[in-house]
Amino acid sequence: MRILGIDPGTQITGYGILEKRNNHIIHIDNGGIFPPKKAPFYKKISHIHEKISEIIQKYAPDMVALEDIFVAKNAMSSLKLGHARGAIMVATHQFQLPLYEYTPTQVKQALTGYGRATKEQIQKMVQALLKLPETAFTDASDALAIAICHLHSYRMKKIQ
Amino acid sequence: MRILGIDPGTQITGYGILEKRNNHIIHIDNGGIFPPKKAPFYKKISHIHEKISEIIQKYAPDMVALEDIFVAKNAMSSLKLGHARGAIMVATHQFQLPLYEYTPTQVKQALTGYGRATKEQIQKMVQALLKLPETAFTDASDALAIAICHLHSYRMKKIQ
Repeated sequence: MRILGIDPGTQITGYGILEKRNNHIIHIDNGGIFPPKKAPFYKKISHIHEKISEIIQKYAPDMVALEDIFVAKNAMSSLKLGHARGAIMVATHQFQLPLYEYTPTQVKQALTGYGRATKEQIQKMVQALLKLPETAFTDASDALAIAICHLHSYRMKKIQ
Repeated sequence: MRILGIDPGTQITGYGILEKRNNHIIHIDNGGIFPPKKAPFYKKISHIHEKISEIIQKYAPDMVALEDIFVAKNAMSSLKLGHARGAIMVATHQFQLPLYEYTPTQVKQALTGYGRATKEQIQKMVQALLKLPETAFTDASDALAIAICHLHSYRMKKIQ
């Protein structure tokens, strides 16, 4: 089972691909989508859609886990982020992949057991769990954390 | 020149198609996209993308005019609306159509000469300008108003 985790953002969208084989979690790849800084906003949003579509075609995940948000501290950032998430939802649905959403608190709880872990603690935990030679950059690491959170929750759901 | 005006919303997205022929504005069609009420949120967003794509294929507009927002009064509505706008931006870009955005104030000013017109005044003005037999429903009427605003601004820009 292969899972694509996504940490959405209009400036950087992090992604991470994991595979579960015989109860082991294998790291496949991780990276970031960086829309051209000077492009009009709607082209940035379309860029995210195109790149997510390419990643799905390249890695053929079985499902997508996306960072959820309720309402960001900054209403303007929240609104922009909504556009990026909309573009990702469209790409996911076009490839008929199921989409799961997890809040930052759920991700932190799944990885460290409590909901207030720092960005650095998450990075270190992701590196340790996936046995990465070095920490992934923040957005990619967050995307991997979302994928790990999903695998954890998904396993829990199957056991119940 | 054919223009597709869109009033985005996760519950109802209004659309209106106008054509400019020899300095006359001709009403082609208007209507609404109504995502299934009980569908998961990401399917509603994808539904909007699919329907906008179908409308573009059916009516072959030359450009798209979309209602812009800065920050809505309600941060949660604003965030949801961002997703719908993201899906519309993706569809527009997939058909390589240029996208123009107008704030509600710009639309009201273009139609009535001042920025604080009521919904009903806009509906009546749209009906009168396009010689519609009856007023279009609010969201479709707003979409037509956005298209009219674009034709007006576009003409102004060309003259300058």
